[in-house]
Amino acid sequence: MKKHNFSAGPCILPQSVFKESSQAILDFNHSGLSILEISHRSKDFVAVMEEAQHLALELLRLEDKGYKALFLQGGASTQFLMAAYNLLEKKAAYLNTGTWSSKAIKEAKLFGEVEEVASSKDKNFNYIPKNYNIPADADYLHCTSNNTIFGTQIKEFPSVNIPLVCDMSSDIFSRELDFSKFDLIYAGAQKNMGPAGTTLVVVKEDILGKVSRQIPSMLDYQVHIGKDSMFNTPPVFAVYTSMLTLRWIKEKGGIAGIQKLNEEKAALMYGEIDRNPLFEGFAALEDRSIMNATFNLKDEKLKDLFEDLAKAAHINGINGHRSVGGYRASMYNALPKESVEVLVNVMKELETQA
Amino acid sequence: MKKHNFSAGPCILPQSVFKESSQAILDFNHSGLSILEISHRSKDFVAVMEEAQHLALELLRLEDKGYKALFLQGGASTQFLMAAYNLLEKKAAYLNTGTWSSKAIKEAKLFGEVEEVASSKDKNFNYIPKNYNIPADADYLHCTSNNTIFGTQIKEFPSVNIPLVCDMSSDIFSRELDFSKFDLIYAGAQKNMGPAGTTLVVVKEDILGKVSRQIPSMLDYQVHIGKDSMFNTPPVFAVYTSMLTLRWIKEKGGIAGIQKLNEEKAALMYGEIDRNPLFEGFAALEDRSIMNATFNLKDEKLKDLFEDLAKAAHINGINGHRSVGGYRASMYNALPKESVEVLVNVMKELETQA
Repeated sequence: MKKHNFSAGPCILPQSVFKESSQAILDFNHSGLSILEISHRSKDFVAVMEEAQHLALELLRLEDKGYKALFLQGGASTQFLMAAYNLLEKKAAYLNTGTWSSKAIKEAKLFGEVEEVASSKDKNFNYIPKNYNIPADADYLHCTSNNTIFGTQIKEFPSVNIPLVCDMSSDIFSRELDFSKFDLIYAGAQKNMGPAGTTLVVVKEDILGKVSRQIPSMLDYQVHIGKDSMFNTPPVFAVYTSMLTLRWIKEKGGIAGIQKLNEEKAALMYGEIDRNPLFEGFAALEDRSIMNATFNLKDEKLKDLFEDLAKAAHINGINGHRSVGGYRASMYNALPKESVEVLVNVMKELETQA
Repeated sequence: MKKHNFSAGPCILPQSVFKESSQAILDFNHSGLSILEISHRSKDFVAVMEEAQHLALELLRLEDKGYKALFLQGGASTQFLMAAYNLLEKKAAYLNTGTWSSKAIKEAKLFGEVEEVASSKDKNFNYIPKNYNIPADADYLHCTSNNTIFGTQIKEFPSVNIPLVCDMSSDIFSRELDFSKFDLIYAGAQKNMGPAGTTLVVVKEDILGKVSRQIPSMLDYQVHIGKDSMFNTPPVFAVYTSMLTLRWIKEKGGIAGIQKLNEEKAALMYGEIDRNPLFEGFAALEDRSIMNATFNLKDEKLKDLFEDLAKAAHINGINGHRSVGGYRASMYNALPKESVEVLVNVMKELETQA
């Protein structure tokens, strides 16, 4: 019995991707070899890496605009320090919208001055700050597009004349944006792109090479670009499975097609949170994430009943993060609308039984 | 038709590991979820991480001796800089036995003085230097236990009173050693331990915390130790598949059992290289690696015939690295003896046909 997997990440991927990647472990491309035992320098894998890079740029509409796509290791947490290592000469501006922004700020402070342009910490990050000043002399502005833990999402990005860096780990490939506004985008794969173990970095080349410090090879974007993301052995399986997922997104009509489905799922979910008198949403209405819906029971006494009903309906992964409590329904690209319907029905059933 | 896979890495893993990991992508532990979609904080995955760490220390006989095992990302190339970031205060000693040692030296130089205690570069790294002086005031000595590209292997490690750091990427878990001589061992998984995408780090805790620089969180061994190798989302699938491979090693009688098989394979292979008048070995006899046998045809005109015969016998991955040329038979733990027999028979057949 398959579960309805609302896990915040690693999370559900398309069923076809599970099948294809499982098969490739037994026999990749009818080669008589497993995807796990082939050389990363083999023709077959070089083709995988190139297709993954190409698809990423194509889906983001960033082809022929001076960007490179890299599939690195170490997660967004490594990007927190790499972004600063490569770009922070004197001062950087950071928008603080939650746990991950705060961690990015902590790492950046090792490399220079950090100006926090705004923060929503005053209300446990339940909203996105607006109308803040961005220092014109900062080396870049860093923001987090979607806050998995708090269920908020930036709807309108600031217009800046300095490089714009964005951690899109939890909403990449989920909605149409003018991605050319950004100079560095990074995203751990394990939400909308693939399994844990690789990180997409999309970087505009002309922002690089401007800091005076020496950068260790593995932390230097220019080194990875120079080697087409194969400076050292890449995480072969994670890149392959990401490539399969990117193909699936393209088949679904690209980001536009996926966005439509995501908005339907989010409307269904938030509709019930707002309608059902037993629940209340956590995030400010205008900043609600279409990826992660955070909500609480108004009456904690209903906790066991709600969770029993959810379990009986084969629902997995709706417990909220400890810093928010309550529940979180993560509705990443691959989550079927049917799963949201099942959860909504459980919420309705609770109302009947309570 | 399965191939005889002599690939230098990523490389062959046990067939049972391919089967189990393929199955876990469809349904992990009868959970109704794929290993690719479960939370790294789930009980099931925490158990995987703990078993992998436990097995690594058990197989190396380093339990209860002050060591921690971590499964990180970024390959040995990231360890080149992490080792120096965490341990190099003033000066470090490096033994240069090949391409990977040279890369480690390059990264370390960003963090302090590097004294190259010896190098075999004068003979294209076809031997392991012996009888060199190690500065007593160095923060550590770094060496590479096995040189994949050149087919050499350190048989006797220097006795030192400073921390001993070793890159064991290409021969970890292949032979018995007194691993307690080492203070930091690291190894990219993609030879004897698992698929590309995770790196085993085994570190003696008491050598840490002694440098004065601030270390970014993701590069700080102490941060990873403090979070039991879960500071950020680990590469779930690569860790799981490594755990399966470590279980397989244990079932085979641990490192002692595996070493016996490896020595039989190496004896067979080198026996033919030395016996067959058409071939010559590359590495110095006393330094020959039991993992990677490097050899050349004496007469380049036989190249096509040899490679055609090998291909017809379903042999994969024996081309040597460009810096050595010729051939390289990588005989990692999971390569069956039968594959070596097939290659040896092809070499004999060449002698008949030539």
